[in-house]
Amino acid sequence: MKSLHNLIEFIEHKAYALRVWSIKAPAQAGSGHPTSCLSAADIVAVLFFYAMRYDPYHYNNPDNDRFILSKGHAAPLLYAAWHELGLVTDEEILSYRKFGSPLEGHPTRRFKYAETATGSLGIGLSVGVGEALCAKLDKRDYRTYVLMGDSESSEGSVWEAVQLAEYYKLDNLIAFIDVNNLGQSSETMLDYKIKQYVERFSAFGWQVFDVDGHNIKSLMEVIDKAHQVVGKPVMIIAKTVKGYGVDFSAGLQGFHGKAFTGEKEQKALEDLRKNFPQAAAYAAQNDWQPKHPKPNAVAFDSATAIVIMENSEYKKGEMIATRKAYGTALALLGDICDAVVSLDAEVKNSTYAEIFETVHPERFFQCFIAEQNMVGMGVGFDCRGRIPFISTFSSFFSRAHDQIRMAAIGTAALRLVGSHCGVSIGQDGPSQMGLEDIALMRCLPESIVLYPCDAVSTHKLVEQMARYSNGISYLRTTRMETPVLYDNDEQFPVGGCKVLRKSDKDVACIVAAGVTLHEALKAYEFLAKQNIFVSVIDLYSIKPIYGATLLDVARKSNNTIITVEDHYLEGGIGEAVMSALCNENIIFHTLGVNWLPRSGAPEKLLAVEFIDAQAIIRFFDHMFER
Amino acid sequence: MKSLHNLIEFIEHKAYALRVWSIKAPAQAGSGHPTSCLSAADIVAVLFFYAMRYDPYHYNNPDNDRFILSKGHAAPLLYAAWHELGLVTDEEILSYRKFGSPLEGHPTRRFKYAETATGSLGIGLSVGVGEALCAKLDKRDYRTYVLMGDSESSEGSVWEAVQLAEYYKLDNLIAFIDVNNLGQSSETMLDYKIKQYVERFSAFGWQVFDVDGHNIKSLMEVIDKAHQVVGKPVMIIAKTVKGYGVDFSAGLQGFHGKAFTGEKEQKALEDLRKNFPQAAAYAAQNDWQPKHPKPNAVAFDSATAIVIMENSEYKKGEMIATRKAYGTALALLGDICDAVVSLDAEVKNSTYAEIFETVHPERFFQCFIAEQNMVGMGVGFDCRGRIPFISTFSSFFSRAHDQIRMAAIGTAALRLVGSHCGVSIGQDGPSQMGLEDIALMRCLPESIVLYPCDAVSTHKLVEQMARYSNGISYLRTTRMETPVLYDNDEQFPVGGCKVLRKSDKDVACIVAAGVTLHEALKAYEFLAKQNIFVSVIDLYSIKPIYGATLLDVARKSNNTIITVEDHYLEGGIGEAVMSALCNENIIFHTLGVNWLPRSGAPEKLLAVEFIDAQAIIRFFDHMFER
Repeated sequence: MKSLHNLIEFIEHKAYALRVWSIKAPAQAGSGHPTSCLSAADIVAVLFFYAMRYDPYHYNNPDNDRFILSKGHAAPLLYAAWHELGLVTDEEILSYRKFGSPLEGHPTRRFKYAETATGSLGIGLSVGVGEALCAKLDKRDYRTYVLMGDSESSEGSVWEAVQLAEYYKLDNLIAFIDVNNLGQSSETMLDYKIKQYVERFSAFGWQVFDVDGHNIKSLMEVIDKAHQVVGKPVMIIAKTVKGYGVDFSAGLQGFHGKAFTGEKEQKALEDLRKNFPQAAAYAAQNDWQPKHPKPNAVAFDSATAIVIMENSEYKKGEMIATRKAYGTALALLGDICDAVVSLDAEVKNSTYAEIFETVHPERFFQCFIAEQNMVGMGVGFDCRGRIPFISTFSSFFSRAHDQIRMAAIGTAALRLVGSHCGVSIGQDGPSQMGLEDIALMRCLPESIVLYPCDAVSTHKLVEQMARYSNGISYLRTTRMETPVLYDNDEQFPVGGCKVLRKSDKDVACIVAAGVTLHEALKAYEFLAKQNIFVSVIDLYSIKPIYGATLLDVARKSNNTIITVEDHYLEGGIGEAVMSALCNENIIFHTLGVNWLPRSGAPEKLLAVEFIDAQAIIRFFDHMFER
Repeated sequence: MKSLHNLIEFIEHKAYALRVWSIKAPAQAGSGHPTSCLSAADIVAVLFFYAMRYDPYHYNNPDNDRFILSKGHAAPLLYAAWHELGLVTDEEILSYRKFGSPLEGHPTRRFKYAETATGSLGIGLSVGVGEALCAKLDKRDYRTYVLMGDSESSEGSVWEAVQLAEYYKLDNLIAFIDVNNLGQSSETMLDYKIKQYVERFSAFGWQVFDVDGHNIKSLMEVIDKAHQVVGKPVMIIAKTVKGYGVDFSAGLQGFHGKAFTGEKEQKALEDLRKNFPQAAAYAAQNDWQPKHPKPNAVAFDSATAIVIMENSEYKKGEMIATRKAYGTALALLGDICDAVVSLDAEVKNSTYAEIFETVHPERFFQCFIAEQNMVGMGVGFDCRGRIPFISTFSSFFSRAHDQIRMAAIGTAALRLVGSHCGVSIGQDGPSQMGLEDIALMRCLPESIVLYPCDAVSTHKLVEQMARYSNGISYLRTTRMETPVLYDNDEQFPVGGCKVLRKSDKDVACIVAAGVTLHEALKAYEFLAKQNIFVSVIDLYSIKPIYGATLLDVARKSNNTIITVEDHYLEGGIGEAVMSALCNENIIFHTLGVNWLPRSGAPEKLLAVEFIDAQAIIRFFDHMFER
């Protein structure tokens, strides 16, 4: 570009084009959020055509600046930006919201230029924190830009991200809030109180600028200032007008999520031409090129090799909590795989993530008690090629379930590790017991759910998780110590199970995992002495379940399966097994937690919930009475 | 009390007693968090023996000031306070954490003086916002006090509550943060940066005071100042020392969640005597009485009567979305029941909660896009005898799952209504589709899960929800319009189902609900023409399922059940039905969403997920091929 003036004219033209497509795409789809695009079009134009240093033709260049559209309902803007870069065709952008198109109603990673799936509000900033922190770790110079709506700033997750970005002094993170003051059905909580936005983010230690969000030159200047900030993240509060440029919608309630169809589309496009005559008529030859990213020495090579860990060296019968075996395995995994990072929510001495921290402190990130942001950050690390292991109490992952859901929709390969599952944690009481975690983790597309009963299987399953990159993997670990059952060279493929006891006179098959597996083995011993024989299966892989072995053993066990689990009956091991064998004419009996538990000694609680060895034995007593 | 001096001495003595019991109770239990109690003992002493106006002997007096222990791990402090009021015996407080004791590791409502269950951090302030807002609604003068830890202030939910308390100008809400700067495993994010705490909460429009949290006189003075504040909520930042009073733990890392047992208990008690000699030796006769609450005219009588709604007046075949029928029913319910309040997360025009708002604006509360706080507030309303109906998109309840989990643990009777379930919402794409909500809501103790297929059943189920006070009730509503199937006087008891089609030659039973029920009926028509007969059941009650009817129909339908659901297969209708009939030798086939969906027209998506009429018909084609 010859001059600043020329550049501004060019960007104004691009903003105009973004607006045009933000009207046309929803119009053809018959739905969408054009007014939410119109308020942010100038910001996006300045980002893509002025601020960002990137090679759009190599969108996965690791040194490219990143852009996260946190206000995912403004998806057409994102698609239009890539259209204006020449990488999305007219036909493609007009396929928006049609079945089979990667240009979905809210962005998913089916659109390859989308950083992550967005559409549940208030998540993008956390992803940005993860990416910005990853840049620091990788010693790369890319910046991460996040565009948020004003309504979503009321989500607590935003404030979790805000706190942590300040804590880690992420001056490579620049966020915008598009303050158009109109939510879906009413004015936002803060309306146009720009001063309050500025005060709030400033109080959290961010460098805050406010700007006219429809003035290209001002936006460019504020970006220049943002680039000068050192030692703190930057928030830009952009005052905008919802529906800007289309007279019949600008600044008016009642147009959220309404496509301009038919005559309205024509009227809207006319308004744009009228309101931006120069940009509409722009025909200058231009030599615009994106600012290229600063290439960095490859400080980190995204590990695509298959992870192969040495076997563990546990002794059979040794008492070790699986949560501790997890920490130990993770530290070893970190030795052989640079990509592994560990995120903790201030419970590292409970989850044993502290073992990893001790040996790899530079790849351990304290996220404090803010689970939503921690999971969102994990998505950011995943986006940048890292292998994030994220651990907290299993019950507290429920705090971040929407983030986990969105990570699954974005096919992020998060490795989640939940400790302190079940009533077996004992005295701390129900608030600390993970009793729904299996159910919550099962109903995520492409997830796997693993639940080891001993240290050896934990070690092997951590290795499996490192290798699993199709989606969420979840490992459920136990607070109490349990004896090592397996040889160190035993294999634990995902989807499998272990047949620990069987005979040719089995009257039923007991399927258990974790602590209840040990109860099942105790019951087996007792029953065997009474000449009652049962098969016993360790279902360490709760999702998926490749049912052949289970079915084979059940067939030879009187077509009867008894599941025993330290989890609510709903959505847990029992239902997972039933689903796997639902049309096989198997009789199922389920033992699990069936009411609100209370504080007490672990053994006592296993007993009162009827999931200990005695309960299993009593069950067989009743069975034979019948 | 004769003089201020006497009163201070008395409260210092009470603080000492709180410390003693906060050591003794965990010592006998062998676990617990004494150091987290020691930092907050002076605050609690000042609250219970100076600030609060209440009648402890009538703890459910609706005009009593409320106290919420958000840092639930400091439970012994709460128990000790009621011990010092003479309402918990020595024996009872020493039963802490023992099986059967209402004094659990973290407070639940089994301890009748606990306002709500706490222990998952960052939730108490939202409950407080609900109670404070309820006081305004009820025109009662009680104040709500919330005690938080410093670590938990990093939870985003806290900032959601902070925003809304300012928005509603809740000057009857006073919160403390016990800044002892030590978390579970490390220093807190803000350490002792009191100034930053003050700046942050001030920026959010709260009146903030900082105070020495171990100076009784200063605490009393700050309370006096707090009581003078008008028009805004008050946050008191109390600088404290973790383990205060016990020399070997005071201000030191490594003592979180560690009971002082054996010799350590004796040493700790000795330290207390040494450090608080006057309070330990206190033997004055005293005439202390709590300040009694200001009695209010009963502006609102908590509705204990059974709610009986008039029948709806829908016409069979009329096309109405169940979400709209919900809004209509809620408005009618509001007419006959003053206790009903409606909470919305800025989607009232999508959930149709706006119909309620139109007729009962004073009982409609806009919570903006902050679902966690909305659910926490609901608990507060429930505590004060209201019937809260809380609605948002079904997918977005996943944002608040931990709050919902804790509400269930606290046996709060929240009525949750999730709209936009399933792939049938169409073009907006997977982020907006509730596809795991049934699974998430099933695995809550005492929950009920309802899923109407038409306007009449929606109307009746809203009435059932109003009556259900044992725990969480969940209603799943649909975006698209569906035809009215039932007569307006049809009854829909919880646990039941409706047999819509059956004959004496049924080859299978189709169990469906919501949109898929209509697909099942279409399939029935088509199959009947081919002389293939099936029974069809509307499973409007997914939890509980009283299986007798289902079993009876299945027995007469070739012992074969086919479930069809617009939900992931995991934890959904299929598994619920399997669980209900697991040991009855029924063959199950399940149709449901089995992979990550995408944007598209609703009909198209139902088809590609194999949950439409054609999929059911094809299933029978295959069945007969075999």
